[in-house]
Amino acid sequence: MVQPAAPLDLTFQALADPTRRAMVERLSRGPASVSMLAKPLSMTLSAVVQHLAILEASGLVTSEKVGRVRTCRVEPRALDSAERWISERRASWERRFDRLDALLAETDPATRPRTSKPLTSKSKRSR
Amino acid sequence: MVQPAAPLDLTFQALADPTRRAMVERLSRGPASVSMLAKPLSMTLSAVVQHLAILEASGLVTSEKVGRVRTCRVEPRALDSAERWISERRASWERRFDRLDALLAETDPATRPRTSKPLTSKSKRSR
Repeated sequence: MVQPAAPLDLTFQALADPTRRAMVERLSRGPASVSMLAKPLSMTLSAVVQHLAILEASGLVTSEKVGRVRTCRVEPRALDSAERWISERRASWERRFDRLDALLAETDPATRPRTSKPLTSKSKRSR
Repeated sequence: MVQPAAPLDLTFQALADPTRRAMVERLSRGPASVSMLAKPLSMTLSAVVQHLAILEASGLVTSEKVGRVRTCRVEPRALDSAERWISERRASWERRFDRLDALLAETDPATRPRTSKPLTSKSKRSR
């Protein structure tokens, strides 16, 4: 059953835009004001603020206004669930390929994978 | 400067939806026909096909029609760039925190981080 909205939706959605990734990349190197964030981007400050709102909604970025300056920071832990989701898929694929390897080794000893024991007859593979 | 459309945009966009993540999760365990993919999802086959099109455009999934059955497979390498992007951000944060740790250790020996040598006076920290 499909869940409605989930934090992962917001994380991946936030990362699906090159401007927002550029902002996260910049903030990964240290906090920055909104105008510092906007400087290398060829867009209006208001467009940058909109992207910032999406990043904040996803939890990837936090910001705090002191006086007239809003300072933005990355939230390092916010990428954890996205990273975990990807690595779980990888683990799932690898288990499947291991099973396929094992199946191949069972059905045809000549196609034994790298992870299996050495062939009893070495000449078989070199032919 | 912001790039226009990039493969990473399509990957993260594809993953930003719970139905599409469920489809990738299912396919990570092995190939499946479109109707097998649709079975646990509470939506029409045509909605599933639309999600499948987005997954195929992102390169995460491939499909092949033989006779009347379209079989879908995950493309394990397609998540590599997304995984790399996240781990690069993590590396960038960690380098920055290492530099902050080093700076703290230089400016005030009492606040030396866990990675530095033990304090010369142990009572200093426990007070």
